Amino acid sequence: MPEFELIERIQARADTRSDVVLGIGDDAAVLQVPAGKQLVVAMDTLNADVHFPAGTAAQDIGWKALAVNLSDLAAMAAQPAWCTLSLSLPQADLAWLDAFLDGFLALAAHHGVALVGGDTTRGPLSVCVTVHGLVDAGQALRRDGATPGDDLWVSGTLGDAAAALAQWREGVGIDVALKARLDRPVPRVSLALALAGVAHSCIDVSDGLLADAGHLCARSGVGAEIALAGLPASDALRVLFDEEARRVLQATGGDDYELCFSAPVQARAMIERAAASSDTSVTRIGRIVAGKGVRALLDDGTQWRPSHSGYVHF
Amino acid sequence: MPEFELIERIQARADTRSDVVLGIGDDAAVLQVPAGKQLVVAMDTLNADVHFPAGTAAQDIGWKALAVNLSDLAAMAAQPAWCTLSLSLPQADLAWLDAFLDGFLALAAHHGVALVGGDTTRGPLSVCVTVHGLVDAGQALRRDGATPGDDLWVSGTLGDAAAALAQWREGVGIDVALKARLDRPVPRVSLALALAGVAHSCIDVSDGLLADAGHLCARSGVGAEIALAGLPASDALRVLFDEEARRVLQATGGDDYELCFSAPVQARAMIERAAASSDTSVTRIGRIVAGKGVRALLDDGTQWRPSHSGYVHF
Repeated sequence: MPEFELIERIQARADTRSDVVLGIGDDAAVLQVPAGKQLVVAMDTLNADVHFPAGTAAQDIGWKALAVNLSDLAAMAAQPAWCTLSLSLPQADLAWLDAFLDGFLALAAHHGVALVGGDTTRGPLSVCVTVHGLVDAGQALRRDGATPGDDLWVSGTLGDAAAALAQWREGVGIDVALKARLDRPVPRVSLALALAGVAHSCIDVSDGLLADAGHLCARSGVGAEIALAGLPASDALRVLFDEEARRVLQATGGDDYELCFSAPVQARAMIERAAASSDTSVTRIGRIVAGKGVRALLDDGTQWRPSHSGYVHF
Repeated sequence: MPEFELIERIQARADTRSDVVLGIGDDAAVLQVPAGKQLVVAMDTLNADVHFPAGTAAQDIGWKALAVNLSDLAAMAAQPAWCTLSLSLPQADLAWLDAFLDGFLALAAHHGVALVGGDTTRGPLSVCVTVHGLVDAGQALRRDGATPGDDLWVSGTLGDAAAALAQWREGVGIDVALKARLDRPVPRVSLALALAGVAHSCIDVSDGLLADAGHLCARSGVGAEIALAGLPASDALRVLFDEEARRVLQATGGDDYELCFSAPVQARAMIERAAASSDTSVTRIGRIVAGKGVRALLDDGTQWRPSHSGYVHF
């Protein structure tokens, strides 16, 4: 029965941790949450031809499926701990599975995450991951804490993943630096952990900056102003796209998995230190204001209105 | 953006619990595991045309997606607490979602389970659920505790779901009682909770009795003998299928979601009381022996060898 071969293959390669009482191989995993900690849980699915081109390398699919979930934990400033994986495959392909695990488990090992369960089944290629993280009680970084007067920050650079996807759709060669951002997003876990207790609110940028900043503002009951000229861009994006194309990619492109967070003005030096200590760049891109909605401002102070503000899921 | 309409629809209908610090609506949920408890996590996906006929009513898909996961928690004797749901849909169909939630949330409410997160996305119809339960530290009921001399037990009746599927494949009308077993499996949660500290080992019967008893034996390093004539059958199965067909369905049919468990002979009276108190029938079907493998015995004591022992996933 090949399912068991697949599971055994996964089990043989999965690392464990001392807080895993029972991992892969029973009806469920048993885990020990330390006293004083709260559990943080996120779940995200990647479907072939929706979240990645069907031809994407198995290693990259594995990496990305875990990365997008770890990015959600990062947005809560949670320390990653465990994950489960539900893998739907058109056929039981052990070589594909091995390559998938190369990517998935490399990122898991980097963050000390134990793969503790899940299932494998037949179906159109789809990868569903649930991640579990830990925070000190009451210390999760939420979307609803933004306060008028806060600075609005973003980590890394914006628009690279969407730029790679645009090149792929046009059938031109994809720039390698941009492709790496699309296929191997880096969850900003260490930056996030350093922001706990400093930032007021946080969200990860998966649907596009304006859309996700909008979610943060809606949950906080505030508005935001963002200066488009100040959005951080990679060298590749600057070289390969003109100003207007870049603006669309940076402000509305999805799949960046950067953190967008607000923090009081007094915290600027602490945030710069958090960025330095986690080797992650951060940029102040605007501020939180009273009211509602996100205003994206051009250099002349007028509001820019994109045709859409972010990734449309359906 | 219809995804947010879907999420809002789910959020508006999802119940919460006092141990949910933060539910649907942020990057991740935040949950409080009580002191002294361990966390039990299971994850299972149902794909259209693999785990259910594509024409299955949305209510039933919702029910079953949660039920198969709660069955895994039951097999560990864990008290269900929270779940997350990742729903892939070909299109954003609010009427379908409402019907799906009718089934899903009815079962969740029955077991006091809060839906705390997940995602909705475009893709072939697929439902992935992660469930979280709680056990007293060290008290999870595992597959690896079976001991030679133990009785082997099973809850409820076997083969009904597979019988319904057989009728569906043959294109004959499906008996309503059998169809209910296929579409609305009942996770044996209350029986399982009563078995904690009494049974030595447990597994849920999802792939077929012989296959799943085999997994339990393999993990425990023991063998088992099962008397086929003693397997519990529903009235519908008895009326509609002859003895040989029944035997195949009961011993190898999947999707029953009954519990197969081992317990010492001395515990028989306690198990009968656990069954009575949880209003769930139980049947002694055999015993655990030294050695390995499961021997399915005919009335004359000879071994029956089916063409396959359970559901083949690929």
